[in-house]
Amino acid sequence: MIINDPETLREVTDAFERYETALTTNDVQALDGFFWNDDLAIRYGAAENLYGYGAIQQFRAARKSGSFTRRFDRLVITTYGKDYATASLHHHPGNAPGKVGRQMQTWARLPEGWRIVAAHVSMIDDPDV
Amino acid sequence: MIINDPETLREVTDAFERYETALTTNDVQALDGFFWNDDLAIRYGAAENLYGYGAIQQFRAARKSGSFTRRFDRLVITTYGKDYATASLHHHPGNAPGKVGRQMQTWARLPEGWRIVAAHVSMIDDPDV
Repeated sequence: MIINDPETLREVTDAFERYETALTTNDVQALDGFFWNDDLAIRYGAAENLYGYGAIQQFRAARKSGSFTRRFDRLVITTYGKDYATASLHHHPGNAPGKVGRQMQTWARLPEGWRIVAAHVSMIDDPDV
Repeated sequence: MIINDPETLREVTDAFERYETALTTNDVQALDGFFWNDDLAIRYGAAENLYGYGAIQQFRAARKSGSFTRRFDRLVITTYGKDYATASLHHHPGNAPGKVGRQMQTWARLPEGWRIVAAHVSMIDDPDV
């Protein structure tokens, strides 16, 4: 299995960056397009556990938080073969000093394109403070 | 891409169950064996962000918590093709009433066997209470 094939890594990095833009500008329609449209898609959020594309979409539609900023501390995107990747980020949210956010995503290349099939975000006290 | 090929799902479910046993009995040596032995392995823990197999192994070795119990609320294991899987669990930790734990793992079939390449665990207030 080829780890971090350059072309695959470029594709996933590009998808990740477009997702990040959609997230920080609260572009709900774009966000929906990044998730696997299937009952098996899962997103563990900051305060909720969402099972299935429908639940994720509903949550996004109700999200009122608008745009936000965050400072990346460390981002690691790793690809496994040509069709599978993880993106792991820990960051400092602009609105929560002393906290560290973690965002981990599993991406798969599906017939419709690269999609997030599972994601988990959480916040902890900054272990480096 | 075949989702949830029965044989692949059996293999990953078996690996997941062996990991669960190792975790709840704090079998450090067994736990180490489940993680990808590579600098790219990542584990976002309850209070720490661990990058690389070495950091994960060090954390395990220092873990003093011993055995514990937890009640599964929902476990979803999904396989993508023959070599990739995610395992997503939310559970009620025996030692933290009113809280919900989330554990998400990405598994890959490597030459050495099925390994966790990325994992993220976190705890939130129970959204159903």
